[in-house]
Amino acid sequence: MTGRLILTYVFMLLGLLVGHYGADAQSPQAVARIFRENNEVAILADFKEFLSYPNRARNLDDIEAVASYIRGELIQVGVNAELLKIDGAPPIVYGEVIVPGATRTLGIYVHYDGQAVDPNNWTHPPFEPTLYTASMDAGGEPRPFPSEGDPVDPEWRIYARSAGDDKAPIAALIPVLESFRDSGILPTSNLVFFFDGEEEAGSRHLGEYMERWNDRVKDVDIWLFFDGPAHASGRPQVTFGVRGSMGLEVTVYGATRNLHSGHYGNWAPDTGNILARLLASMKDDDGQVVIDGWYDTVEPIGEEELSALRGMPDWDGQLREELGLVWTEGQPEKLPERLMVPALNVRGITSGNTGALARNVIPNTAVASLGIRLVKGNEPGHMKNLVVSHIEKMGFHVVTEDPDMSLRLKYPRIAKVTGGGGSTASRTSMTNPFGQSVVAAARIAAEQAFGEDALVVAPGMGGTLPLRVFTEVAGKPAIIVPVANHDNNQHAPDENLRIANLWYAIDLYASLLAMPSTLF
Amino acid sequence: MTGRLILTYVFMLLGLLVGHYGADAQSPQAVARIFRENNEVAILADFKEFLSYPNRARNLDDIEAVASYIRGELIQVGVNAELLKIDGAPPIVYGEVIVPGATRTLGIYVHYDGQAVDPNNWTHPPFEPTLYTASMDAGGEPRPFPSEGDPVDPEWRIYARSAGDDKAPIAALIPVLESFRDSGILPTSNLVFFFDGEEEAGSRHLGEYMERWNDRVKDVDIWLFFDGPAHASGRPQVTFGVRGSMGLEVTVYGATRNLHSGHYGNWAPDTGNILARLLASMKDDDGQVVIDGWYDTVEPIGEEELSALRGMPDWDGQLREELGLVWTEGQPEKLPERLMVPALNVRGITSGNTGALARNVIPNTAVASLGIRLVKGNEPGHMKNLVVSHIEKMGFHVVTEDPDMSLRLKYPRIAKVTGGGGSTASRTSMTNPFGQSVVAAARIAAEQAFGEDALVVAPGMGGTLPLRVFTEVAGKPAIIVPVANHDNNQHAPDENLRIANLWYAIDLYASLLAMPSTLF
Repeated sequence: MTGRLILTYVFMLLGLLVGHYGADAQSPQAVARIFRENNEVAILADFKEFLSYPNRARNLDDIEAVASYIRGELIQVGVNAELLKIDGAPPIVYGEVIVPGATRTLGIYVHYDGQAVDPNNWTHPPFEPTLYTASMDAGGEPRPFPSEGDPVDPEWRIYARSAGDDKAPIAALIPVLESFRDSGILPTSNLVFFFDGEEEAGSRHLGEYMERWNDRVKDVDIWLFFDGPAHASGRPQVTFGVRGSMGLEVTVYGATRNLHSGHYGNWAPDTGNILARLLASMKDDDGQVVIDGWYDTVEPIGEEELSALRGMPDWDGQLREELGLVWTEGQPEKLPERLMVPALNVRGITSGNTGALARNVIPNTAVASLGIRLVKGNEPGHMKNLVVSHIEKMGFHVVTEDPDMSLRLKYPRIAKVTGGGGSTASRTSMTNPFGQSVVAAARIAAEQAFGEDALVVAPGMGGTLPLRVFTEVAGKPAIIVPVANHDNNQHAPDENLRIANLWYAIDLYASLLAMPSTLF
Repeated sequence: MTGRLILTYVFMLLGLLVGHYGADAQSPQAVARIFRENNEVAILADFKEFLSYPNRARNLDDIEAVASYIRGELIQVGVNAELLKIDGAPPIVYGEVIVPGATRTLGIYVHYDGQAVDPNNWTHPPFEPTLYTASMDAGGEPRPFPSEGDPVDPEWRIYARSAGDDKAPIAALIPVLESFRDSGILPTSNLVFFFDGEEEAGSRHLGEYMERWNDRVKDVDIWLFFDGPAHASGRPQVTFGVRGSMGLEVTVYGATRNLHSGHYGNWAPDTGNILARLLASMKDDDGQVVIDGWYDTVEPIGEEELSALRGMPDWDGQLREELGLVWTEGQPEKLPERLMVPALNVRGITSGNTGALARNVIPNTAVASLGIRLVKGNEPGHMKNLVVSHIEKMGFHVVTEDPDMSLRLKYPRIAKVTGGGGSTASRTSMTNPFGQSVVAAARIAAEQAFGEDALVVAPGMGGTLPLRVFTEVAGKPAIIVPVANHDNNQHAPDENLRIANLWYAIDLYASLLAMPSTLF
């Protein structure tokens, strides 16, 4: 409890020295915004430094170095942060701010790990942040980072892994805390920071962390997820649910070794074609999944969700135009509706080589990585079983290890299926009062940054976050409050953040940290 | 002509000093064999050095360095070799031996370039030759190269790119020439060496080389191709024809950028699945190609070929057992018959990533590299058109460049098809008298190395060699005389040569260089 006492002391002392919130004319939101306007070059420089720390999920060295860096940044703005550590697991960067008289506690979740990178596919090295005058797709050009006194264009983009997913929230939180501290403003809620280093690797230890350090999180009233992108229209959004996620990998086998396509072509099993036939059997011409039972366990959508869906902007036309698409899966259904059913996608296929590396061989294996998104009602193990049963129905003997010679000589078609586990979908009720307070605070920031009625309120997003850990393990509601531009290329090469979205994050977090306590 | 005079002089002089063929008790075959037995360690060391020269096709620096090395080796054994050069093309390593009184000229074709390598897939770096006690698949272990005086086990394997395809013939020719020179033996034919540096890149300049240096090749009576593997049974073979080859690359398109599989999954086009549906449509359950017209232009097989096919060993059972296969394409037809029809194979598929690099994206493209093998009667351009028509029939708009936005917004399905060109199949008549002489000489070496009736005589092999250049441009018959073990992993990672096959090559070349002139 020493940490809590010291922190409380620091904040109270500053409050006494500089004057409490309300003692001067400026609202906390205005204080944070003016601080940002006066420090844009420095904030970008700090973000650049932060992004230059590699944070590849599953690389513990990366993760521990970036965790220490974040802890240092929090300490610098007066938060006595620490690292929670379970052996072999990425640490949690933990911090708290106890506000005298506050009657509610906000839990703030961010993840600081990033998706795997294949640097060959990036225009610039993924951990050498590069500033562009606009997005590459829109013809932006690289430019130097600004020097003190230079104007900063909010349409600039900063390119680096995790620029959007999910370092931006930390890069915005720090200046908000700094501006509050400098002006002696206290948040209106107690704050608990719980920064995950394992989200892109499935947050496998998050539940254990929350159980083992239950005393740190038990007082949280609502969890805010600072993650995910804005609505595809570019408008900010608040979201009450996420899909679950599961990855499966399917390997099909030909001969025990690669064979020369001349000497054996027309005789040896054509692994690429065998895999193609299997994948093709999983969907119909419209992109509907035709695996038996795929849609059977979907929980029907409630009245609030239906109403929210109807209220969402119809953005399909613009999105198709932006992405160069005249056809989408499940037409004429639109994107928000499509996110309410489980998805099956090919994340990748690997077999032999193409392009300059193509060789005249018949590859001895072909591998497909399947990305599956689950909705409420789908149980991951059950959905995996449906896929396995389908593969068996297609004539394959399904195994979980590479087949040995006796298996190979027994079955004409063998498929190895690995992966699974995954996470279930999660949704907080849209009538939750804590959630409504958050929506109200977000509306203020959204209006300030994007104009009237800018905020989109969605019943669910397509992506996955470990919401379930909070709603099931901690039993608390959780709401997603994203800030990244929708075209941030998250999980892909050339990930980026639009600077205006970083500024919005600062407005938003100031608004959330200062939201009136009367609302709940 | 200076080169020819000098060479003739060198060989005659050596003949005078050491004694003509027939002046001692040893046959040329015995001389070469004894030389090999006395120099096994040195021959392996030379082969190792040769294999350590990178020879990636399409890398002109590699190719020019290895060409100079080979020229030096030929010069060391008394052949006044030179490099023929067309600007921008890999050089031909050319050499000749004019034998007084010889009435026939053998053209000897070898290629010294190798297939592209992806070192990540190799157990050892592809240009760091590594010796194994047996093949890796058979549990061989790495061992040091032998020192002077150490016994050499013929079951050893040497692993490196081009060990089998196609540096081995050069590594065997050099000691044969050296043993002949040392013993004053003259070949019974004039010899023309024409070593290609562009075979794995399609031998695009070979025809131009033969036309421009026509005076060097016009006297050749028959071309011998020292390339390709032995029969799958392990028995040596002589082959009268090859299939043609063509590579096509098919790219299908989704959105203009990779999309997050959560936020867009179930809505965005699933490129992996779209490509899978296209590839699946090209073959039926039995592995027969169902592209309209695919088998229509196949030239019927003649009486000699049918008879040779019937005489070939039935090796399918053993081969399936070795390769771990209970099913092969076109069953119950066997491998030799399957090589008489055009083949279509997936050489590689690239889309997103799998395994540890898999990310939660919907890749914006999926690419398949198709390997096509043509038989006599198939015209490459016509066969490509059949594939393109099929893709159009499957609903794709076919382009040859990446589509721009206006095309993307016009067509729901777009496929880019590139590649083509390729080479036609070729066959020399099995009744050709030159060919029959070669078969007779090969029978002697095969019997010596592998036992009675070891030689397999095949009407055609599945692979592709630039035979057509010799049969059409030079108008001369061409026969393939392979030496590599059938499981040499040519074109694939961990390519290797069995040492016993290198010793067979020495026997074989000695026999061919000394074949009686009375036979033709």
